[in-house]
Amino acid sequence: MEALTGIRWNAALRSCFPILSWLPRYNLTCARMDVIAGVTVGLTAVPQALAYAEVAGLPVQVRTFTSSHTLSLGKVFLRRCFFVFQYGLYSAFMGCFIYCIFGTSKDITLGPTAIMSLLCSGYIGGDPVFAVVLTLLCGVIQAGMALLRLGFLLDFISYPVIKGFTCAAAVTIGFGQVKNILGLKEIPQQFFLQVYYTFHKIPEARVGDVILGLCCLFFLIMMTLMKNTLGPAEDEAPSLVRSARGLVWSIATIRNALVVVAATAVAYSSEVTGHHFFSLTGKTAKGLPPFKAPPLSETLANGTVITFSDIAKDLGGGLAVIPLMGVLESIAIAKAFGSQNNYRIDANQELFAIEYKWVVSHHNDVPAGLTNIMGSFVSAYPVTGSFGRTAVNSQTGVRTPAGGIVTGVIVLLSLAFLMPLFFFIPKASLAAVIICAVSPMMDFRVPVQLWRVKRLDLVPFLVTFLVSFWEVQYGIVGGVAVSALMLLYIMARPKVKVSDHGVAVLELDSGLNFPVTEHLSRLVYTHSLHASPPRCLVLDCCHVSSIDFTVVHELNELLKQFQLTGLSLIFAGLKPSVLKVLLTADLPVFRHTDSVDEALQLLTGIIHYDQQFSQPITDQI
Amino acid sequence: MEALTGIRWNAALRSCFPILSWLPRYNLTCARMDVIAGVTVGLTAVPQALAYAEVAGLPVQVRTFTSSHTLSLGKVFLRRCFFVFQYGLYSAFMGCFIYCIFGTSKDITLGPTAIMSLLCSGYIGGDPVFAVVLTLLCGVIQAGMALLRLGFLLDFISYPVIKGFTCAAAVTIGFGQVKNILGLKEIPQQFFLQVYYTFHKIPEARVGDVILGLCCLFFLIMMTLMKNTLGPAEDEAPSLVRSARGLVWSIATIRNALVVVAATAVAYSSEVTGHHFFSLTGKTAKGLPPFKAPPLSETLANGTVITFSDIAKDLGGGLAVIPLMGVLESIAIAKAFGSQNNYRIDANQELFAIEYKWVVSHHNDVPAGLTNIMGSFVSAYPVTGSFGRTAVNSQTGVRTPAGGIVTGVIVLLSLAFLMPLFFFIPKASLAAVIICAVSPMMDFRVPVQLWRVKRLDLVPFLVTFLVSFWEVQYGIVGGVAVSALMLLYIMARPKVKVSDHGVAVLELDSGLNFPVTEHLSRLVYTHSLHASPPRCLVLDCCHVSSIDFTVVHELNELLKQFQLTGLSLIFAGLKPSVLKVLLTADLPVFRHTDSVDEALQLLTGIIHYDQQFSQPITDQI
Repeated sequence: MEALTGIRWNAALRSCFPILSWLPRYNLTCARMDVIAGVTVGLTAVPQALAYAEVAGLPVQVRTFTSSHTLSLGKVFLRRCFFVFQYGLYSAFMGCFIYCIFGTSKDITLGPTAIMSLLCSGYIGGDPVFAVVLTLLCGVIQAGMALLRLGFLLDFISYPVIKGFTCAAAVTIGFGQVKNILGLKEIPQQFFLQVYYTFHKIPEARVGDVILGLCCLFFLIMMTLMKNTLGPAEDEAPSLVRSARGLVWSIATIRNALVVVAATAVAYSSEVTGHHFFSLTGKTAKGLPPFKAPPLSETLANGTVITFSDIAKDLGGGLAVIPLMGVLESIAIAKAFGSQNNYRIDANQELFAIEYKWVVSHHNDVPAGLTNIMGSFVSAYPVTGSFGRTAVNSQTGVRTPAGGIVTGVIVLLSLAFLMPLFFFIPKASLAAVIICAVSPMMDFRVPVQLWRVKRLDLVPFLVTFLVSFWEVQYGIVGGVAVSALMLLYIMARPKVKVSDHGVAVLELDSGLNFPVTEHLSRLVYTHSLHASPPRCLVLDCCHVSSIDFTVVHELNELLKQFQLTGLSLIFAGLKPSVLKVLLTADLPVFRHTDSVDEALQLLTGIIHYDQQFSQPITDQI
Repeated sequence: MEALTGIRWNAALRSCFPILSWLPRYNLTCARMDVIAGVTVGLTAVPQALAYAEVAGLPVQVRTFTSSHTLSLGKVFLRRCFFVFQYGLYSAFMGCFIYCIFGTSKDITLGPTAIMSLLCSGYIGGDPVFAVVLTLLCGVIQAGMALLRLGFLLDFISYPVIKGFTCAAAVTIGFGQVKNILGLKEIPQQFFLQVYYTFHKIPEARVGDVILGLCCLFFLIMMTLMKNTLGPAEDEAPSLVRSARGLVWSIATIRNALVVVAATAVAYSSEVTGHHFFSLTGKTAKGLPPFKAPPLSETLANGTVITFSDIAKDLGGGLAVIPLMGVLESIAIAKAFGSQNNYRIDANQELFAIEYKWVVSHHNDVPAGLTNIMGSFVSAYPVTGSFGRTAVNSQTGVRTPAGGIVTGVIVLLSLAFLMPLFFFIPKASLAAVIICAVSPMMDFRVPVQLWRVKRLDLVPFLVTFLVSFWEVQYGIVGGVAVSALMLLYIMARPKVKVSDHGVAVLELDSGLNFPVTEHLSRLVYTHSLHASPPRCLVLDCCHVSSIDFTVVHELNELLKQFQLTGLSLIFAGLKPSVLKVLLTADLPVFRHTDSVDEALQLLTGIIHYDQQFSQPITDQI
């Protein structure tokens, strides 16, 4: 008994702190692999974090063109604020440490991502205080979702909606960086205006930026292609081949860091020689972010105080969209890498089974929530699981979530010691990093697949895709609404198979819920009561799994009609749960049989009886 | 060929102008019955129209407490306007004439109703210009719905929502008249404030109003009870009994007119003798309404011009709720009386069948739309089918929609000649008429039925009921939203029967649509891939009628897992439409059988084969 309680406690503790399930078995091999993976991910995370901050934070003078928050526009305009690049790094380390303790999947790395940065940009309006409050609230909401088990809300975001959104976001983010490759300034943020002005201002492009950007892009694309075409390692190959292979793989894996370092070196040497060829990142803060409670109000330059509730109101729909998208991205990644690793590490299968269940049922929102809550103490903006870095982590052979600690330390070291060098990072090189990171997300095989397999599902895809260009956050909302309406329509107009065996037989193909009432009633009138001649009816309910009161009420009315016209309506093959509801409803002449055949036999018998003896139909069941 | 075209033309004409189907057969008997019914309905319509105008039109000084349109509040407050009683009569005659030509059900009478008046009151803010614009737009929207066949939208308003709304509206309207029975003034319109202030001000009640109101109520209730207990006419009874019976029936039927006339006579005599015992209706306009195009803007006393688009924006959600509710009320009545009369007039069954189909498919929104469009030319507010007057019409034995002409003429005559007398109608008598008209709508057997038959349906009922007290129009919106969410939940978490025959068998009970994906996946992992020991799976899809791409995508992932773990997943009993989708999707190892038995046989065979020879499982189908 005591032992059992002990086991239960143990299980409960491990489910709260998943670190307990792998730490006792941690060994040197694990540590070696984790350090290698951690360093590699760190070298990807630092340049990406710097780059994504630019996606999330927008210069104020541009926002005046574009903000959809007309009410908050005035306030935003008053603030003197620059969302600078270190905010990306501030956001990149907390997730690594938190996930090490609470994380359940060895591969996942939390941090700033392209899509979350784009989503946040619409709500925070370039203001770090807004960003931090959003992070805090986002974390609280995600933790609340985990506690209240609201993860099922994600079930209503369908695959076409996710894909439509991802494609549109990738196009928006990718195209948004073209201006940095070209070295253009003062391009509005709204997608269509951005496209127009980017092309309009091409004559103003800076040669240095263009050349550097294209070189970076070329290198990154080459490296990606090389890595993708690199066959599997062959143990029998000579050691020279194997080391060459290893070198290419390593260079390809840390390609982002290499590109940024090289570009920075070039820019630095051109700056110190007095040539200003490139657009640089410019002024950044120094050192580590202060650890302090998130600000609960903001005082503007002109003395106006914006309270916490004002900020929360301004964030508005962002407080629903951003936490949900954050969890959605995490779970999509957990599932993708969960299923990949499920078979690869066969020894761990049993352990992984527990992990997988946890990941699926808790939707990863506990670590994401905690990371965001804690992130708000170090001036971070909302983070989620990063697909790209998770892939790097997995491919480098990480063994436990401890790899995250190494990544986190690398980010902190960059903040502490490399910050002054970040001044010289050319924007074009970061733009190239972003473009290469998001381009795999532009997966235009999806609409082709949809067209081939299920054309109707192109509708939510296209709605999400197109609306996302207008306002990225409305894309998901619109797509979810459209797919919900399509579901409701399926319920309202199910397929009904009508057949005629002397009496009409209607085979219903799903639940009898209220939207179907009118349709059902019309079918009954057309094929039975008002057919010429009027005939009896068998309702084949073998596929009917649910029924609600609206339908029961209509059936009551229909049965009255059948009674008055002297015709019969028999229900066939009712499931017990549906039968129970119909029995409690006191329907006037409720008759049911186990099968359609039985009902047909009964009805044809009765009809003969009726015709021969002109007797009223009696209820025999 | 020519004859056929002729018949088609004839049918098309008759479907546009249903009057053509009954006019050729019109005769003296029909005319006699129609006149009697028309007069009776007219005598009910006039007092009700006067009374309902009070429900729809609210003194401005009261609205300041209550308006939810905070933005429009300022504008409303600036207007000097009194919504007076003649607007009810203005609204009462157009429907009678239009319905005679375009109507399809002999019983239905269109005109002002309690619920529509209450709904409108929230939007028009006591301003006749707003009311007329609302009428015009409501008519245009209803006609548009008919043309675009949007009637299916009504399918999403379930029975519990309708009943919850009706009960709440009846309580709101009924209680709203208590102040008139008590002769109280300056009671706010919002329900909860109204209850508070009505009780708070009871000491200020006027004795004259209270006595008169209670007498009217007593008489009306007695008459209703007498009419209800009046048994069916017996042809063998002596003629004296029969005429007494007829007298009681007649008095009971025109009880509203009698009460108002008697109360007006009492009030008139007390006024001319210098005693002001009663709160009177007061100043009314004289004569018939002018026939003029509806105003497209309004100029306020202070010179401000409110444009048409401003008015439309102020009306806001009313432009969705009011046309929909109007059509909903009409169709509910058409169905109720349609089914009653279907059997009573046996000779007409064939004709009625056509009519019924028309009524159901066209949802009666053509005549309602036309009535509202035309009504806006005579300063009417939105109308719909009236349940009470339709019942009177049906019971008096109306034969064709021509009865409506008589009713319309009576309303016009009252407007032309009786208007000066309306000054003396005591408010308490109109209040009694309203209370008796709405009290049958407070049908509290519905929640009992819901509790007994399907408890879950109490949720939308209660949501609608309770929210309606807060703001009547939000009640329906809230109820529809809740019932849509409940439907989506049914889709997301269908019942799945799991059984174990050495291999797991999952019997899915309805469509495979995207919200079910996660749930399905979890079940597959729990019962097959991660069960101990892992086992093969048969998905029994005989009840699955639809599938979408999200599910197909997930099945693809699951099949990959099955392939990798060396287990099998077989689909059993797929319907052709579902099979077609799965076949086009290029699933990795897609195997299907006609029945679960076949699949089991196949799997157990394969498993033995596998165990004996340690061969990889091959795809045999």
